[in-house]
Amino acid sequence: MVSKKIQKALEGNSAIRAMFVEGMEMAEKYGAENVYDFSLGNPATPAPAALNQSVRALLDEADAAGAEGSLRLHGYMENAGYADVREAIAQNLNRRFGTSFAARNIVMTVGAAGGLNIIFKTILNPGDEVIVFAPFFGEYRQYAANFDAEVVAVRPDLETFQPDLEDFEAKLTEKTKALIVNTPNNPTGVIYKPDTMRRIAAILKKKEAEYGHAIYLISDEPYRELVYDGNTEDFLTKYYEDTIVGYSFSKSLSLPGERIGYVAVPDEAEDSENLLRGIEISNRTLGFVNAPSLMQKAVARCLDEKTDVAFYDENRRLLYEGLTELGFTCVKPEGAFYLWVKSPVKDETVFVNEGKKLHILMVPGSSFGCGGFVRLAYCVSHATVKNALPAFGKLAESYGLR
Amino acid sequence: MVSKKIQKALEGNSAIRAMFVEGMEMAEKYGAENVYDFSLGNPATPAPAALNQSVRALLDEADAAGAEGSLRLHGYMENAGYADVREAIAQNLNRRFGTSFAARNIVMTVGAAGGLNIIFKTILNPGDEVIVFAPFFGEYRQYAANFDAEVVAVRPDLETFQPDLEDFEAKLTEKTKALIVNTPNNPTGVIYKPDTMRRIAAILKKKEAEYGHAIYLISDEPYRELVYDGNTEDFLTKYYEDTIVGYSFSKSLSLPGERIGYVAVPDEAEDSENLLRGIEISNRTLGFVNAPSLMQKAVARCLDEKTDVAFYDENRRLLYEGLTELGFTCVKPEGAFYLWVKSPVKDETVFVNEGKKLHILMVPGSSFGCGGFVRLAYCVSHATVKNALPAFGKLAESYGLR
Repeated sequence: MVSKKIQKALEGNSAIRAMFVEGMEMAEKYGAENVYDFSLGNPATPAPAALNQSVRALLDEADAAGAEGSLRLHGYMENAGYADVREAIAQNLNRRFGTSFAARNIVMTVGAAGGLNIIFKTILNPGDEVIVFAPFFGEYRQYAANFDAEVVAVRPDLETFQPDLEDFEAKLTEKTKALIVNTPNNPTGVIYKPDTMRRIAAILKKKEAEYGHAIYLISDEPYRELVYDGNTEDFLTKYYEDTIVGYSFSKSLSLPGERIGYVAVPDEAEDSENLLRGIEISNRTLGFVNAPSLMQKAVARCLDEKTDVAFYDENRRLLYEGLTELGFTCVKPEGAFYLWVKSPVKDETVFVNEGKKLHILMVPGSSFGCGGFVRLAYCVSHATVKNALPAFGKLAESYGLR
Repeated sequence: MVSKKIQKALEGNSAIRAMFVEGMEMAEKYGAENVYDFSLGNPATPAPAALNQSVRALLDEADAAGAEGSLRLHGYMENAGYADVREAIAQNLNRRFGTSFAARNIVMTVGAAGGLNIIFKTILNPGDEVIVFAPFFGEYRQYAANFDAEVVAVRPDLETFQPDLEDFEAKLTEKTKALIVNTPNNPTGVIYKPDTMRRIAAILKKKEAEYGHAIYLISDEPYRELVYDGNTEDFLTKYYEDTIVGYSFSKSLSLPGERIGYVAVPDEAEDSENLLRGIEISNRTLGFVNAPSLMQKAVARCLDEKTDVAFYDENRRLLYEGLTELGFTCVKPEGAFYLWVKSPVKDETVFVNEGKKLHILMVPGSSFGCGGFVRLAYCVSHATVKNALPAFGKLAESYGLR
């Protein structure tokens, strides 16, 4: 009695579901400290102390203001979110990235996943195409399918994991409504360089002129602040006018359970006013209604806070250097908290299964539209990384890597 | 460049949008105390004190537990929500309503609007029909349209505003996948009596047998706890096996901005395991991912709390008695916080406009699929109700009601 789409999802879902269950079962069987679970992109660092302090202050202020205070803190507001919160975010972005946002350009969302869905609902008709650069976050496929649109994957350069821009140009069609750019990237940890972004923008502009309609660049940037080695935070509206930004505080403030983020649409984007109104309507009619109210106000007070990036940097160094020394071929991560490793055998699911025998949990690259590689999420304790290295050593030996 | 559906929404949305703007402009022009705004279903009572206290306690406990505490409070959990929260809700419902829920039967949602959308995504194919009893919450139409399904409205008994069950039976077809029941009702304030519910269940069972597939009764019950005059809280699974419950804490705890609610699927419902898994998948793939984590834990500690129902009861008495004395024909509300008033002229939008001239804001019944009536939301201050009565008096006089 479930819908056809969900019937399909129930069948397709079982593989990933099985992996989670397997991980939990292994932890129970061998002890959590003897299982090296690199499968989940779940932050390992706490929220900045300022976050809980801001929540407490908001509660105190509300209680002091009586009934009115409670209604202002927990009540309805515009579907786009509190005006003062949106204004604070606009000004923070303007200061950091030289943009010219006002409150009207910002819509508060239920995380980046909520943001992407309301953007998609606003711009996609059935049969439309959304370009993604492989490897890519697999859920993009489901988000597009929600609106009967399809994801079209562009192949990467298999050395640098920058997108192959010739393939990109070839994959653009009349039906292309949007391109998703996710930098720093999940699952590769790569940052798309300014030159890459400028070339992407030039191709999009050319095709917009050719097709006579806008192609929106959707910047999915939950990892914006997680950059290493002197890389700086980037903001993509400066490369291309028709850019829509989807942001989440899940990683930067370690709040993934709270579902809080925003969408930003610059005035320069084509049809920006209708886009913004459409996104606000979609926020309501898809059932989000508005982003959680207390968390809106709390993050607005923590816009210059950041979780402990050095913690992930240490894991990055340990894991990248450790695996490289063991003979694995790894892409050196520049941001996010993922390490992208070449499978020693063509079918990476075989490699993943060999890893499991040594209690190492990795995600096959085919889940990200790019077989032959695996993703390691190093948002784990330092101990997990250190203790995993001998197991990786055995794995390397079994493949004759050293 | 927006999608066709959103283009249509942008055009259709302008009327309601205009009403909101008009209300704000009137408040600015004449002073908020001189405008009698009965247009919004926004709670007027504060959240119970226990709510903010629970949030504080959760923060203190998390801080005391260090990094782990932060991750447990603000981090990811299963898409269905924290197991302990779901267990607490299951046990609370079992105690109050004699049900047999366990944690597995509950999925925490981003309010009732999020809950209805993930239920719809799970059960609806394009072209399916969802029955609603007029007058009904207008957004049901958009929620069904998200999945290319359609709402089919059943007419009410125009005296009692119980559904016309002959019309209901006539409107059921092979394509009917679900019926939404919203009791206490928005916009009428009517409660569907046990006898009505039993007759609805009998008709559904007969049609299920005839068509050979399940027809789900979706109980949309944000107003469950707002009942007056000795009416008791009801829980609809006892009338009909194939019942799915969508609940929100928005009204009972005055938390509409926080977007917190749940869906309950009893084991007796047909295909209940697939329904639950489908609802959990939909929660993720529609972009909700999970209900806000801190609020999940906070409401779990406040399941026996209730906002100040007596406050609304006082407004109900004032407004119902006041308008009836003035000669208006009103349906006496038994629950929720709405008064349903017959328009003195056939086209109720004319009546609404006459009201506006006296600074009274009401919503035309046609917004709820039932012209000739208006909805007054009495979730306002006592002063607003009292001060509005002379204006209603002038309105009654202008229509010769006394």
